[in-house]
Amino acid sequence: MIVALAGGVGGAKMAQGLQQALPSGDLTVVVNTADDFALYGLHISPDLDTVMYTLAGIADPVNGWGVAGDTRQTLDAIARYGRDPWFLLGDQDFATHILRTERLREGAPLSAVTAELASALGIPSRIVPMTDDQVATKIETPAGRLDFQDYFVGRRQSDDVLGVAFAGIDTARAHPVALAAIAEAEAVVIAPSNPIVSIGPILGTPGVREALAAAAAPVVAVSPIVGGKALKGPAAKMLETLGHEVSALGVARLYEGLVDGLVIDEIDRNLAPEIAACGQRVLVTGTVMGDGEDRRRLADEVLDFAATLTPERAGAR
Amino acid sequence: MIVALAGGVGGAKMAQGLQQALPSGDLTVVVNTADDFALYGLHISPDLDTVMYTLAGIADPVNGWGVAGDTRQTLDAIARYGRDPWFLLGDQDFATHILRTERLREGAPLSAVTAELASALGIPSRIVPMTDDQVATKIETPAGRLDFQDYFVGRRQSDDVLGVAFAGIDTARAHPVALAAIAEAEAVVIAPSNPIVSIGPILGTPGVREALAAAAAPVVAVSPIVGGKALKGPAAKMLETLGHEVSALGVARLYEGLVDGLVIDEIDRNLAPEIAACGQRVLVTGTVMGDGEDRRRLADEVLDFAATLTPERAGAR
Repeated sequence: MIVALAGGVGGAKMAQGLQQALPSGDLTVVVNTADDFALYGLHISPDLDTVMYTLAGIADPVNGWGVAGDTRQTLDAIARYGRDPWFLLGDQDFATHILRTERLREGAPLSAVTAELASALGIPSRIVPMTDDQVATKIETPAGRLDFQDYFVGRRQSDDVLGVAFAGIDTARAHPVALAAIAEAEAVVIAPSNPIVSIGPILGTPGVREALAAAAAPVVAVSPIVGGKALKGPAAKMLETLGHEVSALGVARLYEGLVDGLVIDEIDRNLAPEIAACGQRVLVTGTVMGDGEDRRRLADEVLDFAATLTPERAGAR
Repeated sequence: MIVALAGGVGGAKMAQGLQQALPSGDLTVVVNTADDFALYGLHISPDLDTVMYTLAGIADPVNGWGVAGDTRQTLDAIARYGRDPWFLLGDQDFATHILRTERLREGAPLSAVTAELASALGIPSRIVPMTDDQVATKIETPAGRLDFQDYFVGRRQSDDVLGVAFAGIDTARAHPVALAAIAEAEAVVIAPSNPIVSIGPILGTPGVREALAAAAAPVVAVSPIVGGKALKGPAAKMLETLGHEVSALGVARLYEGLVDGLVIDEIDRNLAPEIAACGQRVLVTGTVMGDGEDRRRLADEVLDFAATLTPERAGAR
């Protein structure tokens, strides 16, 4: 059994590669939910949906999020009622949010709802929210404290990020299925998602760091920073304004003591010695995932790399 | 000021004709809400929506309900999740249900939500739900007691109707705007909607019959039964199994003591003397509404007819 920790698009691609590389049912993806928010009274879980659509093979291939070929009639009609359609939601996508919201209001936990939706789409992997409790990312900027989606979508990540907080995280409980999966895993893969706002909340959920430290399995991260840039999203700029080095080495330092190995791109080969000095074994390969074949190839390499590692990180058994 | 009491498609057509015939803002439509129900956690108000879409000029011209040209991506995706798409909802239609549900959950009364939606669509008339309280039509059939939409849509009106009940109606309060409009109206028009399950709940809401009896204005009904048949829906079969005569005369008897005049179709001219014997003045004209011109012409005739009437019904001032 393999566990992946994932945010949105990058994490979903990595998870899809792992799903393709593994026997059916052998993958558990623990997903960030700190980006979740309410819109038009519906509960939106952007990262869960991106992972779910990707693992179901119905994700939009261009955006990486949303459903391939989705239309926008519902959102256009919402706009006709005078509401701001600032967050793009497709018609098929609305079905997800409607049914999720219905089940949550009936009292079902987010994890159960996620399992129901994923099962209906025929997904052979387990998708587990990091917690069933509510955690909300807040972004400190020169313009004040912003809700994550306001910063991320509404203001197009144009604000400098001076700080990040996860409201509610101190009292959130990591999902027991996630903790059990980490404990039993043969390898844990931290996907190339934003280390601050995608992987950060998962690691910050009480119980997760302890579970990773105690796991018998090697923990491997794939750097989302390639050639000093983020493949997608605001990770690079965010690392910079938060005082981190914007490179695979910066990622290594963020994950220091937490991972046994780091997978970096060919373009960052020169950083390997310094990363090794952080106590991490290094795999240098092509990490930029395009189509499905890329994802599968990277997943195979990451799994092979993990299999060579003996856990030596702090606290590892 | 003119008040119309309306159910779904037939009532909406009548209301549209009246809206065209009257100065902007002079029409108040009091709408049945006993068909309202919850689906996928959303609050659906079929008659309010049909009236709203029709008065906004965006109703589907073939079905009479739903939005013209609407697509069905959301419902298809809901079906992909394994849920039964038994009640047809278009993508633009979903926007209405999503926003209505959001506002109701925020604590807004249905009437306020309805006014907001109608205003955003530029509707110059007032659309008022008969009550902000919950009333639910139940249909007694040989197969047992059915929720209205289960009988009406789910089972396609195939069950014999042995009885009709409106759960919650005894404690419902008629909307004060509806009562005030009736009190101040120059005429009240009971639209050619199903007298049992569309007009019945409006009349059954405590306060409405008293308001109609006390109104200074003439009350005129338009028969929904033409040539012994309902123009749309199960009214004819329902009248029959409930022991009423299936004709404009049967309608006259149902509305006896409540209306001053009844508008019947040319084809029912021979019933005029017997209807007159019920104490109702009769206007014979073409009552089948097709396109917009039909609606406007009938509305003009109904208003002219009402203007000739002196209230003589039971309890009239």
